[in-house]
Amino acid sequence: MHVGPTVALYLNLQSAPINNPGLVHAGDSIWLWIALGVGVLALIAAFVLAKIVLAGDCGTEEMQNISNAIREGAEAFLSRQYRTIGILAVVLAVLVFFGYHSSARTAPFALKTVISFLVGALCSALSGFTGMYVSIRANIRTAAGARTSLNKALQTALRGGAVTGLVVVALSLLGVGALFLLFGGLENPQAVPYQLVGFGFGASLVALFAQLGGGIYTKAADVGADLVGKVEAGIPEDDPRNPAVIADLVGDNVGDCAGRGADIFESTAAENVGAMILGAALYPVFGIKGILFPLIVHAINLIASIIGVAVVKTNDVEDPMSALNRGFYVTSAIALAGFAGAVYEMLNGPGVHPIWLLFCGIIGLVTAFLFVWITQYYTESKYRPVRSIAEASLTGPATNIISGLAVGMETPALPVIVISAALLLSYYCGVQGLADIAGISAYAKGIYGTAIATMGMLSCAAYILAMDTFGPITDNAGGIIEMSNQPDSVRDKTDKLDSAGNTTKALTKGYAIGSASLAAFLLFSAYLEEIKTIVTAKVNVPGGYMPVGWSFTNINLAEIPVFVGALLGAMLTYLFSSLAIKAVGRTAQMVVKDVRDQFRENPGIMAGTSKPDYARCVHIVTGAALKEMVLPGLLAVGLPVAVGLIFRNFSASYGASAEVLTSNGMANVPSINGVPVNLAGASAVAGLLMVGTISGILLAMLMNNGGGAWDNAKKWIETGQYGGKKSDAHKAAVVGDTVGDPFKDTAGPSLHVLIKLLATITLVLAPLFL
Amino acid sequence: MHVGPTVALYLNLQSAPINNPGLVHAGDSIWLWIALGVGVLALIAAFVLAKIVLAGDCGTEEMQNISNAIREGAEAFLSRQYRTIGILAVVLAVLVFFGYHSSARTAPFALKTVISFLVGALCSALSGFTGMYVSIRANIRTAAGARTSLNKALQTALRGGAVTGLVVVALSLLGVGALFLLFGGLENPQAVPYQLVGFGFGASLVALFAQLGGGIYTKAADVGADLVGKVEAGIPEDDPRNPAVIADLVGDNVGDCAGRGADIFESTAAENVGAMILGAALYPVFGIKGILFPLIVHAINLIASIIGVAVVKTNDVEDPMSALNRGFYVTSAIALAGFAGAVYEMLNGPGVHPIWLLFCGIIGLVTAFLFVWITQYYTESKYRPVRSIAEASLTGPATNIISGLAVGMETPALPVIVISAALLLSYYCGVQGLADIAGISAYAKGIYGTAIATMGMLSCAAYILAMDTFGPITDNAGGIIEMSNQPDSVRDKTDKLDSAGNTTKALTKGYAIGSASLAAFLLFSAYLEEIKTIVTAKVNVPGGYMPVGWSFTNINLAEIPVFVGALLGAMLTYLFSSLAIKAVGRTAQMVVKDVRDQFRENPGIMAGTSKPDYARCVHIVTGAALKEMVLPGLLAVGLPVAVGLIFRNFSASYGASAEVLTSNGMANVPSINGVPVNLAGASAVAGLLMVGTISGILLAMLMNNGGGAWDNAKKWIETGQYGGKKSDAHKAAVVGDTVGDPFKDTAGPSLHVLIKLLATITLVLAPLFL
Repeated sequence: MHVGPTVALYLNLQSAPINNPGLVHAGDSIWLWIALGVGVLALIAAFVLAKIVLAGDCGTEEMQNISNAIREGAEAFLSRQYRTIGILAVVLAVLVFFGYHSSARTAPFALKTVISFLVGALCSALSGFTGMYVSIRANIRTAAGARTSLNKALQTALRGGAVTGLVVVALSLLGVGALFLLFGGLENPQAVPYQLVGFGFGASLVALFAQLGGGIYTKAADVGADLVGKVEAGIPEDDPRNPAVIADLVGDNVGDCAGRGADIFESTAAENVGAMILGAALYPVFGIKGILFPLIVHAINLIASIIGVAVVKTNDVEDPMSALNRGFYVTSAIALAGFAGAVYEMLNGPGVHPIWLLFCGIIGLVTAFLFVWITQYYTESKYRPVRSIAEASLTGPATNIISGLAVGMETPALPVIVISAALLLSYYCGVQGLADIAGISAYAKGIYGTAIATMGMLSCAAYILAMDTFGPITDNAGGIIEMSNQPDSVRDKTDKLDSAGNTTKALTKGYAIGSASLAAFLLFSAYLEEIKTIVTAKVNVPGGYMPVGWSFTNINLAEIPVFVGALLGAMLTYLFSSLAIKAVGRTAQMVVKDVRDQFRENPGIMAGTSKPDYARCVHIVTGAALKEMVLPGLLAVGLPVAVGLIFRNFSASYGASAEVLTSNGMANVPSINGVPVNLAGASAVAGLLMVGTISGILLAMLMNNGGGAWDNAKKWIETGQYGGKKSDAHKAAVVGDTVGDPFKDTAGPSLHVLIKLLATITLVLAPLFL
Repeated sequence: MHVGPTVALYLNLQSAPINNPGLVHAGDSIWLWIALGVGVLALIAAFVLAKIVLAGDCGTEEMQNISNAIREGAEAFLSRQYRTIGILAVVLAVLVFFGYHSSARTAPFALKTVISFLVGALCSALSGFTGMYVSIRANIRTAAGARTSLNKALQTALRGGAVTGLVVVALSLLGVGALFLLFGGLENPQAVPYQLVGFGFGASLVALFAQLGGGIYTKAADVGADLVGKVEAGIPEDDPRNPAVIADLVGDNVGDCAGRGADIFESTAAENVGAMILGAALYPVFGIKGILFPLIVHAINLIASIIGVAVVKTNDVEDPMSALNRGFYVTSAIALAGFAGAVYEMLNGPGVHPIWLLFCGIIGLVTAFLFVWITQYYTESKYRPVRSIAEASLTGPATNIISGLAVGMETPALPVIVISAALLLSYYCGVQGLADIAGISAYAKGIYGTAIATMGMLSCAAYILAMDTFGPITDNAGGIIEMSNQPDSVRDKTDKLDSAGNTTKALTKGYAIGSASLAAFLLFSAYLEEIKTIVTAKVNVPGGYMPVGWSFTNINLAEIPVFVGALLGAMLTYLFSSLAIKAVGRTAQMVVKDVRDQFRENPGIMAGTSKPDYARCVHIVTGAALKEMVLPGLLAVGLPVAVGLIFRNFSASYGASAEVLTSNGMANVPSINGVPVNLAGASAVAGLLMVGTISGILLAMLMNNGGGAWDNAKKWIETGQYGGKKSDAHKAAVVGDTVGDPFKDTAGPSLHVLIKLLATITLVLAPLFL
């Protein structure tokens, strides 16, 4: 029997003997060293970039005071947040350890799983920390740069963002690669990828809490500051008299920088591990090269992005977006060329048609472009959706909201069609590319095709992340300029940058949900690979019974446990969003209360004679946001575990819907390595995972795009449409914008992370559900 | 080979030979005659009730003028609507006929399918028409009755509603029963239920357009009348000077009465047919009695509901809800007793434990109660959710909306847990009840248990529907009293009734979504029974290959076509809702425009010296609503068909994920009666159906309960909380209420129907997807 896509879990986790030693060329391990080497180089490049950014001018003392206040607030939040997350991570590590230890089948892997979990969590936290460390220092230098030239400011902001992008991707590459090496991947390449699943789980756990906590913080501070500042006291946004203004600027950093950094770290980490597992399934074809391929793709990603960032240059008249796009095109072109080279070099061999596999990668890249385009269509004011919301504002806030929700509900249509087409096409190309390989099912070939598409989509992630982090840096720079009373010429420059930053933030959100969708499918496939079992039946043949076995990758929605899991998964996405939104509301109320208190206690604030106590407000939001992130976070972790553990005890009559027909057949028995297993738990969790993901993707699109559209409808009215600022239409549009805030910056992005957390937690705990 | 749960589609549609003639006792056909007899009696009872209601006093001439205007508007809408639906139905009938004719396998059933489709559509239309015919005449008699006593008014309204309830359930029973008889069900009981699927499809098609058209009409008129009347002109609700006021009252009838009547007709029709198909799968156990059981349950339902309505009596001091509840308790008790009797009489036999099957029915009833209770919790002002929305109104419309959406997103949690528990428990009871029966899989037994639970839940549907139609009748009566300047003592009575009507409307919406969820599962199971195929493998045994067959009920989410179908199904629910909401917005704009025009053209209207042209406004809304219902309706019908037809051409490499493992096995081949089939189309549609249903249920709960909560938060503030009417909090709450209107009365109820339409359309077209 060959060890191919029919390998079962037990075997995968064990040290599987290499069945085809001819496939392991000693020389192939060079690919691992190349990937690790590029990872180290990228870290050095990030360090150099950070040095260059930090060497920049820091502007006036007034600017520095503001920047310092932001920095202190952000650092205080992050250190308290990491303490909370650290405690949760250690508790979970202990639970996972004992869970694995409770069964003889999994006990040998307990330590490795916990180690990779903790390393993943640590790398994720480090990514978030680095991203924030640089961006809260790049903001003031961007602001100061704007006093010289637009190019100076643009380069500072993008390079600050690039540090995050490079560190995130490099740490993911180095973490996965180093653990693979440490766990003996070069000797035992088919089994070790399964032992890395803890890394993805650790990464997602930190990402979930980072995004939830940061998202709650940023929107509570924003909404709270607006409610009491703009609405009650009638002072403009970013006015230094508002005690919540620093908290608002801190929020941009902890929500967007730290949160998004951890999010993309988790995406690449989970994608790396998932793709390696699928590569292991194709071991008979590609050998260890198929397993190392994802790491090489990210090495290319790093090189392409460094070059892309280096070429970005502008002058004082060009639209900053054009310069950023130029860098993106350069990055994409290099990434594509590198991808093609890697496919022909690594995914090749007798009977393989690499051109089809390259097509898969191109499909991924095209999908990324289409997602970005669709996001633009739904959130930019030059297209119908935003304009329809703006027009509906004429008849008041109710019609504005109805119209925004209708737009939000419309937004999943095109992306779903694009994902569907990408999955079907890349599956087809995968089957074609490996059509001449015998002994591997068409299914395994097609699924590998979808995995290559996902890698293609993520092949310029580092540059995208740089553009994304560019957003909050320029946002902060604008705030610092606003609060420190700089001349209009400087303000014009930061306004230009801020507008480009808003665009990049929206685009990368589209990219993030697109890649989350494809990565989710990749991770399902890895999960299914992990729980693949062998169903045997005894067939009555002349002379006695003969066993016949089917390899079984089956999540059958017709089974009640799977259907109930699916219902609960979809419900989880709604409840989680509800909790996240309510958390913002409660935290914002505390901000409102503190600002009111400060205005009352110290009338000098409004008079402009004394400074408000920014730190007190920051302190309050910090405490509240950290408290509020725990419940939705625990729900996300707890529900899949509860479903798996409850259903694994269900009687077999809830399961098998396939039954032996012929009179000479006997009952079928799912088994792993000959030991009968009850699949109810694992398949209920699979139902939860898959339908939860589908529901989560759609809800996230509704909230991200709906929120973005409301925001830009307001901005469009502010350009003078329908009466411009201060008109009734504008007031209605402000309502929509406020409703959209927790949608697009708290619940939506947290759902991205939830989707991936569901995938990684089930990957880690699958053995416990059997 | 026995013909049991392993019967495949081809066989089902053919005239299957009766394998166990001992099971058909000639005497058992008596049950069909009993059911038909009760159906006819119920129609007579409905006729008598209608006579009694219509014999009532019609009040003053002014009241009659208003009532006549409502009646004319409603009848004009309905006749134009039915013309549009009729054209669509005929086109679809032709398409279905030719679709069935295109394959030799299905051609013999083309005529029967089309006949049952047309009969179903006709009965559904008739149900909607009768409901409305009586309610637009009962409204004025209720109003007139309120001038005598509360009891008179209450009885008139409830009896008017009961006519609808009885006609709907009786027509569903008679339609299904008569077709069963006509198609030779008594001779060939296992095959004929499959030939009735067209009945359910016809019913859902009419229901979809009736609910969409009516829902768009009612909310467009409501929102339009409010926007220009209350907001712009500053006149109160139901003011006779508002040209849209009659359109608003017409809307209550065409939306709530005609729409809901068709909706519940479709529920019972689809449930009857689905349960009969599952009964056919258990033919070896229960014989024809298992197939006729659902019809007998509805016969009991009719008798219990007639008695329940007869006992409702009140006086002028009691809360009308108590009287209505008394009737409900009586109905439930009789229905339960009848249900138990039917179980012991019909679902009994050697080796059967009927007590467990009765438990299934009780689980269904308890589920109904729990759903009603949960709906109350989320939509009544004495509980936390509504109060939290009211409190959030203090900080303006934005926080009101955020809070309402958060409540809406929370609402699916408890119902999902209840459905999950109901499915798991009734499955368990089904398995236990038939544990001693050999030759039937545990799966088929469990699924039958869930079907019995669904029947239990629907076993007092006629009374529930009477309570539901009670709502719009009292609402209309209140409007007539308001517009005809009656004394306060009369108004007090109609206010009391109106408030009870609002409660019953909310409760029945909870009941409707709960029964839709369970019925959807029943219909999936019927669909799976229909596409159940036999997977064969050839096994290499000494002396040659031997075929081994598995019966296959498998909707495997791990297969790309199923997953893509699932994605598209979930997307459909969002896009459909978006289209429905936008349709309301566009139609409301036309109302606004017409009212503004009328005010401008005829200044005498506002002065009170001349009457507005009510008919013109009614005419405009009618045309617009009918135009707007087409696109979402066609999307709902077209998408599953497109998915099925596209994917049926997909190569087999997209399908089979199960692969033969052992070296002596050969490839597996799904086949039906020995003819190989490609399952990609049928399973992609199954993915669409199941995940579309899950997503639809959750979205509908969000919209129904969110909308109800916003409505009642506003009403709670109007009782004097947070500053009462005219306060800023009230203004904010009005915004929420307006947002909730198209949610709870257009998109939400239309989603209920969409879910069932998906199930019935796939049941009818399944043979074409293979």
